[in-house]
Amino acid sequence: MYHHVKKLMFEVNVGEADPRFGKMLLEQFGGENGELAAAMQYSVQGMNCEDPARRDLLMDIGTEELSHLEVIGALARMHLKPLRESDEAAMADPLIALVGGGGVGLHNSQGAAWTADYVSVSGQLEVDLRNNMAAEAGAKIVYERLLKYTDDAGSRDALKFLMAREIAHLKAFGRALESMDKGPLEIGDLPADEEYVTPYYNDSTGDGDAGQDSEGPWNTADDVEVVENPAFSGMAVS
Amino acid sequence: MYHHVKKLMFEVNVGEADPRFGKMLLEQFGGENGELAAAMQYSVQGMNCEDPARRDLLMDIGTEELSHLEVIGALARMHLKPLRESDEAAMADPLIALVGGGGVGLHNSQGAAWTADYVSVSGQLEVDLRNNMAAEAGAKIVYERLLKYTDDAGSRDALKFLMAREIAHLKAFGRALESMDKGPLEIGDLPADEEYVTPYYNDSTGDGDAGQDSEGPWNTADDVEVVENPAFSGMAVS
Amino acid sequence: MYHHVKKLMFEVNVGEADPRFGKMLLEQFGGENGELAAAMQYSVQGMNCEDPARRDLLMDIGTEELSHLEVIGALARMHLKPLRESDEAAMADPLIALVGGGGVGLHNSQGAAWTADYVSVSGQLEVDLRNNMAAEAGAKIVYERLLKYTDDAGSRDALKFLMAREIAHLKAFGRALESMDKGPLEIGDLPADEEYVTPYYNDSTGDGDAGQDSEGPWNTADDVEVVENPAFSGMAVS
Amino acid sequence: MYHHVKKLMFEVNVGEADPRFGKMLLEQFGGENGELAAAMQYSVQGMNCEDPARRDLLMDIGTEELSHLEVIGALARMHLKPLRESDEAAMADPLIALVGGGGVGLHNSQGAAWTADYVSVSGQLEVDLRNNMAAEAGAKIVYERLLKYTDDAGSRDALKFLMAREIAHLKAFGRALESMDKGPLEIGDLPADEEYVTPYYNDSTGDGDAGQDSEGPWNTADDVEVVENPAFSGMAVS
Amino acid sequence: MYHHVKKLMFEVNVGEADPRFGKMLLEQFGGENGELAAAMQYSVQGMNCEDPARRDLLMDIGTEELSHLEVIGALARMHLKPLRESDEAAMADPLIALVGGGGVGLHNSQGAAWTADYVSVSGQLEVDLRNNMAAEAGAKIVYERLLKYTDDAGSRDALKFLMAREIAHLKAFGRALESMDKGPLEIGDLPADEEYVTPYYNDSTGDGDAGQDSEGPWNTADDVEVVENPAFSGMAVS
Amino acid sequence: MYHHVKKLMFEVNVGEADPRFGKMLLEQFGGENGELAAAMQYSVQGMNCEDPARRDLLMDIGTEELSHLEVIGALARMHLKPLRESDEAAMADPLIALVGGGGVGLHNSQGAAWTADYVSVSGQLEVDLRNNMAAEAGAKIVYERLLKYTDDAGSRDALKFLMAREIAHLKAFGRALESMDKGPLEIGDLPADEEYVTPYYNDSTGDGDAGQDSEGPWNTADDVEVVENPAFSGMAVS
Repeated sequence: MYHHVKKLMFEVNVGEADPRFGKMLLEQFGGENGELAAAMQYSVQGMNCEDPARRDLLMDIGTEELSHLEVIGALARMHLKPLRESDEAAMADPLIALVGGGGVGLHNSQGAAWTADYVSVSGQLEVDLRNNMAAEAGAKIVYERLLKYTDDAGSRDALKFLMAREIAHLKAFGRALESMDKGPLEIGDLPADEEYVTPYYNDSTGDGDAGQDSEGPWNTADDVEVVENPAFSGMAVS
Repeated sequence: MYHHVKKLMFEVNVGEADPRFGKMLLEQFGGENGELAAAMQYSVQGMNCEDPARRDLLMDIGTEELSHLEVIGALARMHLKPLRESDEAAMADPLIALVGGGGVGLHNSQGAAWTADYVSVSGQLEVDLRNNMAAEAGAKIVYERLLKYTDDAGSRDALKFLMAREIAHLKAFGRALESMDKGPLEIGDLPADEEYVTPYYNDSTGDGDAGQDSEGPWNTADDVEVVENPAFSGMAVS
Repeated sequence: MYHHVKKLMFEVNVGEADPRFGKMLLEQFGGENGELAAAMQYSVQGMNCEDPARRDLLMDIGTEELSHLEVIGALARMHLKPLRESDEAAMADPLIALVGGGGVGLHNSQGAAWTADYVSVSGQLEVDLRNNMAAEAGAKIVYERLLKYTDDAGSRDALKFLMAREIAHLKAFGRALESMDKGPLEIGDLPADEEYVTPYYNDSTGDGDAGQDSEGPWNTADDVEVVENPAFSGMAVS
Repeated sequence: MYHHVKKLMFEVNVGEADPRFGKMLLEQFGGENGELAAAMQYSVQGMNCEDPARRDLLMDIGTEELSHLEVIGALARMHLKPLRESDEAAMADPLIALVGGGGVGLHNSQGAAWTADYVSVSGQLEVDLRNNMAAEAGAKIVYERLLKYTDDAGSRDALKFLMAREIAHLKAFGRALESMDKGPLEIGDLPADEEYVTPYYNDSTGDGDAGQDSEGPWNTADDVEVVENPAFSGMAVS
Repeated sequence: MYHHVKKLMFEVNVGEADPRFGKMLLEQFGGENGELAAAMQYSVQGMNCEDPARRDLLMDIGTEELSHLEVIGALARMHLKPLRESDEAAMADPLIALVGGGGVGLHNSQGAAWTADYVSVSGQLEVDLRNNMAAEAGAKIVYERLLKYTDDAGSRDALKFLMAREIAHLKAFGRALESMDKGPLEIGDLPADEEYVTPYYNDSTGDGDAGQDSEGPWNTADDVEVVENPAFSGMAVS
Repeated sequence: MYHHVKKLMFEVNVGEADPRFGKMLLEQFGGENGELAAAMQYSVQGMNCEDPARRDLLMDIGTEELSHLEVIGALARMHLKPLRESDEAAMADPLIALVGGGGVGLHNSQGAAWTADYVSVSGQLEVDLRNNMAAEAGAKIVYERLLKYTDDAGSRDALKFLMAREIAHLKAFGRALESMDKGPLEIGDLPADEEYVTPYYNDSTGDGDAGQDSEGPWNTADDVEVVENPAFSGMAVS
């Protein structure tokens, strides 16, 4: 059961409103790496989770993300305010101006409606936690990029808070995954056939204006067997 | 530049075709964890990647996933074949029967059209690799689940091959991430403010029919400071 | 700021689980008239609302809908449980079985991903409240229809609770609209040109297997002027 | 059966074409509150309606909206015309320039493709009519907002005509609802349990930078019983 | 300007209603090859068309397709009727049963909402007409497939009428294209560089379980120069 | 089975990068007429095709389109590069800047995610080939339009190559269709009822600001019978 308290998780102050930056902020309101995506992903995973401790973790962070949604929404609203007075700004963002009356909506920064296709809910905890770690990493980098586009001190404070929380969540989900005592390649119950795990198929070859054939631990380690040009040379596996 | 060779990466034989299972297989053809999603995610990441070695890795695996798409498509087609003769089967899957004429289309198992919203391309390698590890874990579990619904030996062989390759890719992406020498919480360039990383907000509390307040390394470790009921008790951070 | 308490707003008991009914219930979890749509519509309207009293109303009900989402999710999960054991049930719902592992996801009853296109946020209170009244009416009728498909006492109790709450919200939104002291045709600030409000264009005419030309207060009232066949007879207005 | 007559329902003249305003106009061509959405919603409701008089009403207005679609399309086309000659204008709207060749397409003002998710067809007349009243209110406010962004006399005339018609339709749908002789809270056939209609859950509390706890007829009327902080205090209903 | 007459373009009689067939019919109501797609594609092309004669053609057929939409809707409704009484049928189609109350909605046969992404409007007449010819061919084959799944005489009559009209339209669009006096390869104004038109790249090679390298007029005609394995052998063109 | 070679099918050089043009180019990367749509349409048609020669054709061209996707992606990336340094450019394209880090993503020029709804796969060769001819015509005109917006010699060379290849494919698909020896109106197996093919319904009539009633070979040829105003005058066919 949910309760809402009428305060923001982080106080938001905006010196000079910038509607173009406000539009950018909508990426973290209704975009693919945004706070609604995170809130929904963790909360619905939590509703499905049968491990009580990790269910608690998912609900804790899922709920926190709802509070983040409120913070980023408040920040975006402050930046979008001048759009109501300026024809120039409104014409640059007709969806916000015409449909939303200058307020925030569940869109990304280009006006695409939020969709649950952004969200991964697998019903398998070690998969969900990896998806969450990836989601937090993705959200962190978007906040980092947003910080390049504003000098406003109050906006920067709020964005830094939200950005840091992504790292806090990345840490928490990482610990939840580690403490499950599953190996890094152990997903689900069925073991993978070693014969098919060993080969590394060199499916992209040559050196040219689209890259170079290269090496790294993924194709040089002892437990890897490189198969060159498998489309042409025949495959050991078939 | 791409080239296609007219053989399947894994030979596909189907004993008894089962159209309902064929429909299930479409989840891995045009679904959110399917082979097209993987092929597109890694290939487009690869096109954007400026680290030549990891670009090579992304193109190798992105290309392999196109070959997987072809395998799963061939397998699904074989299972869907009876649908062309059986009214019963066709009426259960009108989209396949009417629009596709019994063939495979870029849909998931429920007929939803594939969308690039399934794909994550961040332009940040340590984020892309985490997304890829999550994607491989997700695809592995779907193959594992698919194996529960067929006894057909040829189908099982192909699915086991595809499932094992997901683990091979998970391993490869994991090594590519490790060898970047970035810490597990290091995403992008901007450091996260430690003051905001430390707190763990206990935002979901109480014990009841929707779970129990619990402990784990994410809220008991020494470097974590639990804030109880932050909505009510005031927050250290604001 | 949000807080979650680990109890359900309404206790959910299921006697005999019915996976087909579980799938139906997803309509109210992730469907166009469902609880997520309601929660998002009212909460985002609330974030944008500058009338403090109605903002409070919107946040009260928006938050309650999040709690409803949790109730309907729990109910659907209980009904979907046998799907994990039954191949028959799983093959009828491959998306739930394969992608969700038998749990609930943000889809409607046919597997379409939830989209913010279901949600109306206009930034104009008298429009938002009308949209909310329509949304509550729509949700009420879906609950009523759901009740036709189950005899399970515990399920019926929960659905009746949720259904009644839609009426409670319809009442509340209606009062919030009335108390704004705007006329029933008063939307926004610009008056409508009476000359163009008066005509009723009889654009669909004749009697046949697609209906009959009919009368009602909308085309017989004194303040209405019927224009017959405007496409052919010329229009008073142009 | 439909017939088209080669004249516009309202004569459209544009003095000075403004491509940015033309793009805005697309919101009412292919956007969520636009004329296609209205035409489809009422016409499909009409096809399903078994009350002959209201079916006639729905078909009358549904057909009129098709004529409005044509008017707004003609107006948008006139404003978009310079985009074909101006690189600047074209680069600001690449979808219109490249895909549509400067013409109108079934997109909203930001280029999102029209979707039937904008449309509500419930098969329940008292629900459909409420949805239609909300839709008309929404369309009215968008026309009002559009009028802020043009001084062109011919454009303003057409928009005022279209705006006034929304009010005419709001009036008609309202009368159709009233004359059904159902109470304002009577939706469908099943009565709502009074015990669950009475409570008002104060789920959003406190006073802060995200609002104030407030009063209005929705929580002060005699037939309402306020439940404070239901997540914490226990609920009368469960 | 549009007008609606209350008769169907083709009289619809259904002997024995079959809800599963009714669901199939929705493919031609709100599906990718359906009547709404055709109506919208031709009508919006028509609104943009500056060649008066072909504009007339596009509006004639676009309007006819609206009448077809009405016919297929009426037919689908008749077949879906038993779904309102049968729990079995309703549970097989929860979206129709719960959201639509047993009526028709703007979905395809699997419940996916209609989208303007189905529609092509290019602003270039020789492209539009080709798209329309393809669309008519696609609609024809879906009607042909539908006819496999019903023995009901009245349904078959209506479907045969609709199927034949697709051929009539294919013929009309073909004549409109021919009479433009553009060569079969003449699209737009810019000539294509012959040097790049001549080569045929043999990008898919070998003989195996995924096909055979083959010949046809497309790679054997005198004006074609086959380039074998261009990815490997270097290309004449670069 | 697929193989990738690390060179571009056409060498790409950009003199002066223009981020606005880079955004335009995304239309052919992830847009409705773009290279991914072509690659997917032909390749999936090919996987379903049981005519070995035309299957080979479909796979040849489907594979070539993957190489085009790579070329257009490389070109777009070069043009988008300055966006990473310029706040102005980034704020004009927040999705590219924030989510993609300045790289290319599977979006169209307005940021809409690629969807398989752009793709037609019918399982009927004479339909697929017509769709492909229409798709090539559509892609050709978009390349022609793109050429209006750049003077950069290297960009123009690449675009001309890609544009010419669309004509080469149009030619090849046309020949594949002709050589099937089916008449121009022969789609599938069921003949169309001549009685219903003959009429031309004049459904859009009159002369006015929305067009004129006109003639052309589609309604004047000897084998056509014009039915005037069928909605009003009764129809021969029913």
